[in-house]
Amino acid sequence: MKKIFVLLLFLPILAFSQNEDSLFIKQMSDDIMLNGKAYEWLYHLTKKIGNRLTASTNFYKAIEWGKQTLQQTGADNVNLQTCNVVHWMRGKVDAVSVTSINNKNESIKLNAIALGNSLAGNANAQVIALKNFDELEKRKDEVRGKIVFFNYGFNQTYTETFRAYGESGKYRYFGPSRAAKYGAKGCLIRSLSGSTDNFPHTGMMKYNDSFPIIPCAALGLQDADKLWSLCQSNSITAGITTSGYYLKDTIAYNVIGELKGSTKANEIITIGGHLDSWDVGEGAHDDGAGIVQTIEVLRVLKAMHYIPKHTIRFVLFANEENGLAGGKKYAEEAVAKNEKHLFALESDAGGFTPRGFGFTMQDASLKKMQNWISLLLPYGCYKLEARGGGADINGLNEKLNVPVGELLPDSQRYFDVHHTNNDVFETVNKRELLLGAVNMAALIYLIDKYGL
Amino acid sequence: MKKIFVLLLFLPILAFSQNEDSLFIKQMSDDIMLNGKAYEWLYHLTKKIGNRLTASTNFYKAIEWGKQTLQQTGADNVNLQTCNVVHWMRGKVDAVSVTSINNKNESIKLNAIALGNSLAGNANAQVIALKNFDELEKRKDEVRGKIVFFNYGFNQTYTETFRAYGESGKYRYFGPSRAAKYGAKGCLIRSLSGSTDNFPHTGMMKYNDSFPIIPCAALGLQDADKLWSLCQSNSITAGITTSGYYLKDTIAYNVIGELKGSTKANEIITIGGHLDSWDVGEGAHDDGAGIVQTIEVLRVLKAMHYIPKHTIRFVLFANEENGLAGGKKYAEEAVAKNEKHLFALESDAGGFTPRGFGFTMQDASLKKMQNWISLLLPYGCYKLEARGGGADINGLNEKLNVPVGELLPDSQRYFDVHHTNNDVFETVNKRELLLGAVNMAALIYLIDKYGL
Repeated sequence: MKKIFVLLLFLPILAFSQNEDSLFIKQMSDDIMLNGKAYEWLYHLTKKIGNRLTASTNFYKAIEWGKQTLQQTGADNVNLQTCNVVHWMRGKVDAVSVTSINNKNESIKLNAIALGNSLAGNANAQVIALKNFDELEKRKDEVRGKIVFFNYGFNQTYTETFRAYGESGKYRYFGPSRAAKYGAKGCLIRSLSGSTDNFPHTGMMKYNDSFPIIPCAALGLQDADKLWSLCQSNSITAGITTSGYYLKDTIAYNVIGELKGSTKANEIITIGGHLDSWDVGEGAHDDGAGIVQTIEVLRVLKAMHYIPKHTIRFVLFANEENGLAGGKKYAEEAVAKNEKHLFALESDAGGFTPRGFGFTMQDASLKKMQNWISLLLPYGCYKLEARGGGADINGLNEKLNVPVGELLPDSQRYFDVHHTNNDVFETVNKRELLLGAVNMAALIYLIDKYGL
Repeated sequence: MKKIFVLLLFLPILAFSQNEDSLFIKQMSDDIMLNGKAYEWLYHLTKKIGNRLTASTNFYKAIEWGKQTLQQTGADNVNLQTCNVVHWMRGKVDAVSVTSINNKNESIKLNAIALGNSLAGNANAQVIALKNFDELEKRKDEVRGKIVFFNYGFNQTYTETFRAYGESGKYRYFGPSRAAKYGAKGCLIRSLSGSTDNFPHTGMMKYNDSFPIIPCAALGLQDADKLWSLCQSNSITAGITTSGYYLKDTIAYNVIGELKGSTKANEIITIGGHLDSWDVGEGAHDDGAGIVQTIEVLRVLKAMHYIPKHTIRFVLFANEENGLAGGKKYAEEAVAKNEKHLFALESDAGGFTPRGFGFTMQDASLKKMQNWISLLLPYGCYKLEARGGGADINGLNEKLNVPVGELLPDSQRYFDVHHTNNDVFETVNKRELLLGAVNMAALIYLIDKYGL
């Protein structure tokens, strides 16, 4: 009986609260869909600045733009957080070709791009085409002096393409060193994508100091298929020329804007994306989208005259792609300053139509949030999953056990453009981009209001 | 106690059944994602045939292709269902320009396209720019001798773009006759879209026999904004030239492939899309996508060696865009032959990433289906809503009270391409298209197995 009484007592309050939240989120959504600036900001970032490899001229232009934009959008203060970054350069245009077929002098140029952080080199050798690392181990004695070609494809049966990316990522990151271990002269990989086109996809690789440095590149999928097919029946020779090198390490910055909290100003909610990109395309989905959505959340909270309880930090992280120096620095400083972080959210999965959020946090916190799902459902988010975070904010979770989360946009198109010359403004849809920001703003509002 | 006993008795069976369904749907999904032909079929339909206006040469080519493809995909029989259709022709290229600004002789060409089924005409007159029909009624005395420009925009605050389309559709369909009623010489409308580009969108309009026939066209959104802006401060004259005309009515065909049912062969489940398109672009999303998804469902059921209980009809409807003759004929014949129809499903909202289905049916049937949602969730469908059907199958619902439904893909991008030169193969993502087919196949399987 008592239980029922308590329930009856609280029910109207809860209902009122849900209704108030629903109305506030609708106001934010309307304002974003009608007055949002994310798309225009993305135009500037992609078309006026362009791609933004860490330590490049464009990257510093983007930092300056980010600082100004956060200031103009009404952040209470904007700071640059210094971090040390590598300064990798691609050098001249990468070239990969099949240089002889059946001992004829024919040469076919393949759509290829050197892997990120790889170094200059030339290889001209017979190709050994392998499906995976297991086959490498079995055939390791055949590898010496050859170019290893890992043709590990995306598993197209997964509904979530990130799962396929997760499985095939090791071939890009470790493939060259695994091949070098057995004496390979060079390494080619199938691009990490399930697309229908032939754009090659770059991305981070890592040499192993114990083994030789060899040139390595990713092939567009059509050319990967072509090379695979050629290798099935013939002895194929290929040439790889890459020109990567490092300038000396330098400094870069996380750009941090704050909205000061009222009652809990010393507790921080972080929301961010990364300002750097690879040196191809325009870094539109990866991660211009996350950057402009982050600033859009600031814009709409200001437009609503919302005073947060907690201090909300809008962070444009540096160097996510080839070093993660920005995310590491942010976490280190949080530890050093003994900061209290309530939650951190990243958008770094493309500016596509939103489907939900993924989280790494206590079950109880996740359950609490799942009660909010009806507030997000009108804007396309229907899942709040126990899995997720973001490269730039995972450090907070690892070092300080901060609950972290990420926006989960629809993933079908992401690996069509990811790390390619095709990651350009034109592939971003304005409404999809803005709807992502709507859901991010709603989530941040709810966490600020109700805690975790 | 008895209730509990019954529950315990049935629970394992239900669980086993769900598990069996889950496995079967996963097999279908894997087969579609790996071996699906929908994308290659769409390539043929869009690139080898092209747009397919009813009664055009391309349209008849598409009918022939559809017949062959259904046959080759293993339909037990394929029939052509004859229907009478209008034969509208656009004629020469439509031209709309602002011909004088401030009495100077400057002329600005606007991106425009005559509305579908409109007739040839010339108008050169002052523009009266109106927000909506309410304003038309208030200012009806100013309309005579002028060109009426309805600048009714998409409501961008709606998450579902079809809601905005629903609201603004009347300006395309009735706008010209409403303007003619008050003596207008011509009519321009803002394209039915919320896009950021300047493609003009055609689509069906209807003259009213009581009022004069006037030329009418839709403007690209940027040019609609431009004209609106010019009209705010100046007296603007515009010119419209359109060249639409009718050839005499002719015949066309619904293409119908069947999988014969086993135990309930006389009960029909229909699944379809429409084979015709407007005479612009390639009819890729509208509705090449629905056509190839329909045939994909046939393909995968055959690949699974699935013998349906009910007879499943795969219908490529004729003339959805400018007459609906195919859908009407299909329903009429169902009545005439006293056919028993269990359910009909249409895909005609673009080949985008699927989010759910909308239905028009009894509440009890809908509730039954909503129990299946966990079987669709792994493939991106999370909502089974009480709203929906499809132009081609609504006749079945109206005449025979047949439960009908439609695939609900994400709608954010649809009205960027709808009825424009930009509705081309390149705007369709293979995985999104196939995932739509996965969910359609799953739904048809469940309805065939469990009824409604």
